[in-house]
Amino acid sequence: MTTVAAPTSHVFHSWSAQDHVDSLHVVAGQGVFFEDDKGQQYLDFASQLVNLNLGHQHPRLVKALQAQAEKLATIQPAFANDARSELARLISEAAPRSLNQVFFTNGGADANEHAVRMARLHTGRRKVMSMYRSYHGATTTAISLTGDPRRWANEPSDSSVVHFFGPYAYRSAFWAGCEKEECERALAHLEAQIILEGAATIAAIIIETVVGTNGILVPPPGYLPGVRALCDKYGIVYIADEVMAGFGRTGTMFAVENFGVEPDLLTFAKGVNSGYVPLGGVVISDDIAATFAHTVYPGGLTYSGHPLACAVGVETFAVFKDEDILQRTQTLGQEVVAPFLADLCKDFEQVGEVRGLGLFWAIELVKDSRSREALVPFNPSAEENAPMLRIGAALKAAGLWPMIQQNRIHIAPPLIISEAELKRGLEIIKQVLSAELRG
Amino acid sequence: MTTVAAPTSHVFHSWSAQDHVDSLHVVAGQGVFFEDDKGQQYLDFASQLVNLNLGHQHPRLVKALQAQAEKLATIQPAFANDARSELARLISEAAPRSLNQVFFTNGGADANEHAVRMARLHTGRRKVMSMYRSYHGATTTAISLTGDPRRWANEPSDSSVVHFFGPYAYRSAFWAGCEKEECERALAHLEAQIILEGAATIAAIIIETVVGTNGILVPPPGYLPGVRALCDKYGIVYIADEVMAGFGRTGTMFAVENFGVEPDLLTFAKGVNSGYVPLGGVVISDDIAATFAHTVYPGGLTYSGHPLACAVGVETFAVFKDEDILQRTQTLGQEVVAPFLADLCKDFEQVGEVRGLGLFWAIELVKDSRSREALVPFNPSAEENAPMLRIGAALKAAGLWPMIQQNRIHIAPPLIISEAELKRGLEIIKQVLSAELRG
Repeated sequence: MTTVAAPTSHVFHSWSAQDHVDSLHVVAGQGVFFEDDKGQQYLDFASQLVNLNLGHQHPRLVKALQAQAEKLATIQPAFANDARSELARLISEAAPRSLNQVFFTNGGADANEHAVRMARLHTGRRKVMSMYRSYHGATTTAISLTGDPRRWANEPSDSSVVHFFGPYAYRSAFWAGCEKEECERALAHLEAQIILEGAATIAAIIIETVVGTNGILVPPPGYLPGVRALCDKYGIVYIADEVMAGFGRTGTMFAVENFGVEPDLLTFAKGVNSGYVPLGGVVISDDIAATFAHTVYPGGLTYSGHPLACAVGVETFAVFKDEDILQRTQTLGQEVVAPFLADLCKDFEQVGEVRGLGLFWAIELVKDSRSREALVPFNPSAEENAPMLRIGAALKAAGLWPMIQQNRIHIAPPLIISEAELKRGLEIIKQVLSAELRG
Repeated sequence: MTTVAAPTSHVFHSWSAQDHVDSLHVVAGQGVFFEDDKGQQYLDFASQLVNLNLGHQHPRLVKALQAQAEKLATIQPAFANDARSELARLISEAAPRSLNQVFFTNGGADANEHAVRMARLHTGRRKVMSMYRSYHGATTTAISLTGDPRRWANEPSDSSVVHFFGPYAYRSAFWAGCEKEECERALAHLEAQIILEGAATIAAIIIETVVGTNGILVPPPGYLPGVRALCDKYGIVYIADEVMAGFGRTGTMFAVENFGVEPDLLTFAKGVNSGYVPLGGVVISDDIAATFAHTVYPGGLTYSGHPLACAVGVETFAVFKDEDILQRTQTLGQEVVAPFLADLCKDFEQVGEVRGLGLFWAIELVKDSRSREALVPFNPSAEENAPMLRIGAALKAAGLWPMIQQNRIHIAPPLIISEAELKRGLEIIKQVLSAELRG
């Protein structure tokens, strides 16, 4: 054939009505910026899909990738391979003390699928509890775990998933008056539901350590330790989903460190190698690993522990150390983002709440701050969503690529962002909100 | 920590009891050979996991990978990207005429998961039929589709999967006396089961075009056209799983070409880029794509259409053309493998059947050729499996890395294998069988 197809004409897009896709044609990226085919540059405040923790085209990651390609691009999972072994060692050392084995997958969805499988086989139980307002991936069990509208069109799927309400003080499901009360009631609610579901039927509870796409919901201090205690009390496996929150996003290597808890399984992807090569995985407690010491683990995949993906992961650890990524993420979050957003919240009646930690924040927009009614309703139609679409378009026109979810602007730039770039992005948000919202 | 871990000590392995893993430490690969840390070379007759269609470290694939890493390692799926667009175009042009859209995934399991989702939403039906003796992946729906022992420990999973018997003339489930009768009866059996399951409840039938791990079962000529006709008759989506059989393995770009059928959805992975970077996908018919023209497709993933993976896929098409991969695969299969294995079958009482096409073959070992009793039983215990383990060990000791499944030796070398290398591998198999079997 001699036809030259238009750039996107044969690509079927994720989460889209195909005739309504109008893709920006991206031709280059460097650091916190990427560029389209018209030469327009965007400051990436979404880290693509919150995966690009070390930014576009980090020279050391590119070099590590090219070097591994030169050495050995791929080898099947049953073999030992240096890059795979070394990344597993680094992750084990960085993870909570009792988590020392790593099962590598291709991404976050299959990481969660395998974690659930491990929990089910370890406990001999079937049911899994996950939160409303969560995202865990799009394969059958992962989408069932998911507690947002993306699940609906896929139901019924895994029939052994039950959803519960997590803490969200700004929109409490428990009629709580403060964060402490929200925490206590969320735990009481969870225990009540465990008992009514039948504790002995529940294999696992899976929680995004900081809920990501569904709102950057930072749990109150005692919540995750309380979940840990309930899991211990009832023999339930605690799975921490850190696909988005892990690898420095919250200012610690794994987000659980902020809350002083050790899960039994921890899933990761995205930031592990900034998505330069598809990679995800499950970090496994010694206790659960022991279940599969002499019994076959009945799961696997062709690209488990892909050398190319792992080599970029190994270099990621080195860059984290050399560029002091964790400390600077904490500092930028506390000293730049937090005060800027606090002011925004004071200045704008329609900024209902701001929250986050590290470089992982949400600005929640409301019709007015007293009623807390969201600026657009949950799962808005295109028409209902017009105010957020307008804000998104204005941010893009101003050169900032945002992450907008429901009635929220999320802030999740690459962790290598400079203070000046971060401030520039925040200023753009402020200017756009000034134009679009009532003061 | 100062501990230096042993190479594999933190890696949790696929499909294994972890304390029983004794991994070969692979340090290099080139063409059809790979090398362990002791300098032992192996002729790779398994193409790793039947993914390495263009061999280890193909210089053009490595170069394409490095060049894309230099240009732009990753970008999120919603954006248009040259490598992604070009690979989608190439695949669409190579695929059957009515399949013109490509949804990219990370591998074969999620490709099948998404294909099933598309079929369910397109038809408004739920049930999916798949074959006994099949493998479709290890995420929840994919493992449910699977018709081999790897499914068992994962049950129950997707409750809307039903298994049926496919054609396998050597071990007919239909008491057929010849291949033609096997074909007719397999189709009659399938239609009977469709009717009893309720045709109006069945969204899809998924079939490996040539069954891979479960036996290199080449369907008789009329079978897949018969399945196509049944799907048309009952409004069922026909999904061709070509994760293993696609991209030249059978001597055609897609295996369906051998049988003159057009599926509605075709899934791929592995050979698309030889697994240098994790990649899979679904090629979608115009009819099914139209279902999602104005309705959101409710599925997606962070790394869909990963530029690095796609760049290696684009170069794969160029290498296929320049090195005449399809023609040479056909020729080597017909002129070297087929006659060699036919002789083996004549010479060895315990070689029950040989079958295959392209560079995708099975040698089925039996206790004797009259009873056809398999040399080891279905899903053998380690003890029962001793004869096959012994053959495997002898092949490895002779420098050939085999793919052994149940009572079969599979032959699936990289498609770039030279005639001399292929003959050398076949001779090793013959020598080992001479030593291990009764003549």
